[in-house]
Amino acid sequence: MSARFELVATDGAARRGTLALAHGEVETPAFMPVGTAATVKTLDGDDIRALGAQIILANTYHLWLRPGRETLEALGGLHAFMAWDANILTDSGGFQVFSLEERRDVDDEGVRFKSHLDGSAHAFTPENVVGFQEALGVDVAMALDVCVKLPSSREDVAEAVRRTTLWARRCADARSREATALFGIVQGGLDDELRGRSARELVALDLPGYAIGGLSVGESRNDMYRVARSTAALLPADKPRYLMGVGTIPDLLSAIDGGIDLFDCVYPTRCGRNGRAMTFAGDLNIRNATFARDPRPLDATCRCRVCTTHTRAYLSHLFRANEMLGPRLLSYHNLAVLERLVTDARDAIAAGRWNGYRDDVRSRLPALERQAV
Amino acid sequence: MSARFELVATDGAARRGTLALAHGEVETPAFMPVGTAATVKTLDGDDIRALGAQIILANTYHLWLRPGRETLEALGGLHAFMAWDANILTDSGGFQVFSLEERRDVDDEGVRFKSHLDGSAHAFTPENVVGFQEALGVDVAMALDVCVKLPSSREDVAEAVRRTTLWARRCADARSREATALFGIVQGGLDDELRGRSARELVALDLPGYAIGGLSVGESRNDMYRVARSTAALLPADKPRYLMGVGTIPDLLSAIDGGIDLFDCVYPTRCGRNGRAMTFAGDLNIRNATFARDPRPLDATCRCRVCTTHTRAYLSHLFRANEMLGPRLLSYHNLAVLERLVTDARDAIAAGRWNGYRDDVRSRLPALERQAV
Repeated sequence: MSARFELVATDGAARRGTLALAHGEVETPAFMPVGTAATVKTLDGDDIRALGAQIILANTYHLWLRPGRETLEALGGLHAFMAWDANILTDSGGFQVFSLEERRDVDDEGVRFKSHLDGSAHAFTPENVVGFQEALGVDVAMALDVCVKLPSSREDVAEAVRRTTLWARRCADARSREATALFGIVQGGLDDELRGRSARELVALDLPGYAIGGLSVGESRNDMYRVARSTAALLPADKPRYLMGVGTIPDLLSAIDGGIDLFDCVYPTRCGRNGRAMTFAGDLNIRNATFARDPRPLDATCRCRVCTTHTRAYLSHLFRANEMLGPRLLSYHNLAVLERLVTDARDAIAAGRWNGYRDDVRSRLPALERQAV
Repeated sequence: MSARFELVATDGAARRGTLALAHGEVETPAFMPVGTAATVKTLDGDDIRALGAQIILANTYHLWLRPGRETLEALGGLHAFMAWDANILTDSGGFQVFSLEERRDVDDEGVRFKSHLDGSAHAFTPENVVGFQEALGVDVAMALDVCVKLPSSREDVAEAVRRTTLWARRCADARSREATALFGIVQGGLDDELRGRSARELVALDLPGYAIGGLSVGESRNDMYRVARSTAALLPADKPRYLMGVGTIPDLLSAIDGGIDLFDCVYPTRCGRNGRAMTFAGDLNIRNATFARDPRPLDATCRCRVCTTHTRAYLSHLFRANEMLGPRLLSYHNLAVLERLVTDARDAIAAGRWNGYRDDVRSRLPALERQAV
């Protein structure tokens, strides 16, 4: 498989690595901007490159429905379609399909569902989800998994683990493209025994990478931290570990501290569209009247294009005037914050000063946003 | 006054000039992207610079209401506020106020109006409109004018001309800032005699530039062309001439042909937000199903960043998926088309081949978009 992971340094459980994929190397820990529908909302490839991201995430469920496989193949695959020449990881769509609830029907064969766009009927199987991702030419494909909301009964979580393993095997058997690396997704809710079983069964498949799924779905932050860390410890040290759907500063600090290498989350771009700016001194709501004449940048320590160019006053005005440039600039800045966090984390781990860096960043966050790591 | 206009070349009535303003030179003919609320919608300064624009337009009415003079002054003026270091021209707000209709009340002193945002009461006078624009530190301020919708009675148009001259004199007397050049606005509807009177009265004030206002407000295209050309001929050859609110390819061709130097219009950005792409082969609706798998750029002859990067298929997808990147990319491209048109027009005029260029561009437009020049 075309995914070689090299562990460059460790500092405690924290890891500094390099993941070589078909479209270049990814320095880890890495945060992947989310481009659900073949666009990181409001940004294009030039912006993402300027942010320093070496990999972005797109979504099988959304791209399957629109523009669809035939269009994506006709245009030369997902990279060409969206004019992005670095790496792409696609989520399998499992998470989206299982969040449809009333619109889906699952058995061991796969999952039938109705489009949220037009109600049309579709079916995902482990095989066609791998086929779709390979047809798109992505660098990392995710196995189809069963994601349960939390809290759920132990029985439901165990059943999700059983089916996730069954489907991961079928995904592995369905592979036909060397340049697309298949990652498995560990499930098991908050149950240590089930997490352990899921991890063991997937690790036995010797996949080139593993994700921790089924978190950030309703559980407490402390539960999420605990399970992410204990699950990471069950995964092979020589493979990349990806915590799905995590993307705040304190969450990344905790997860990197627990040995996680890859992250994705809609948080920075969703916040950006809603006027919420992420900063190393805590999030702020740019619509707040207090910013209307504030000549400072969003974050005095940030070196991004937005912070070196624009004031809080201007950004505040853009949101009050409902100007599209506001969401764009805040999305860019928020992603810059997380890209800087992982960049600095990589340097700190490589230099053996991870604990100091982690504690320093945490100490500058407001008490409410700090969490035990 | 800080506006020196140099006529570099003429070819028939068409003019190639250089307008030196406080924030640098503007090569004319020039198209000014419209940044009503201190942002050219979806774009920031880096984008506008990349497009090659040397001057943009902002709007007194909108900025007066939001963010307001005190905020703009506190942040160091409009250039600093919006982080734009080239030239800015502000419209006087006359056009907006007179389009409020039921919400305004006019006499010789000025115009009282209610905000479209919150109904709050405001008053524009020639003096406070000049004071506002000077406080913002703009490079070109427009005199407060009276704009009538067409058709209107000769009496109403004559009254608008009378008041526009009265106000232009008071605007000229109110000037107190060397770096802000005051332009007058010729009114007079479609009436040659009234246009002549308005032009004569304003030219007597020896302002550094003149605009042709009161067009593109309901009259036919042929009427607009005829009056713009005949009015331009009444204006001094050694001052810049600005046709307000004009911004399609055939309209610019006709107006440049008649000796106009400056243009602004929301057309390219408004079209961009609505999925209408301007091309030298005619406008196209990117949402049209025919573009869903079209691998070509919007315009095969366009060298802009969008056309050298993205396919019609991708842009079509962005609009179908309601992705904000769609309006952004189309706005950028549409402005690039007009910036290229004026760039090529400048070269053609300087080289004495304006007629050939004009006819060539016109011949490539669909018959419906062609107009007599």
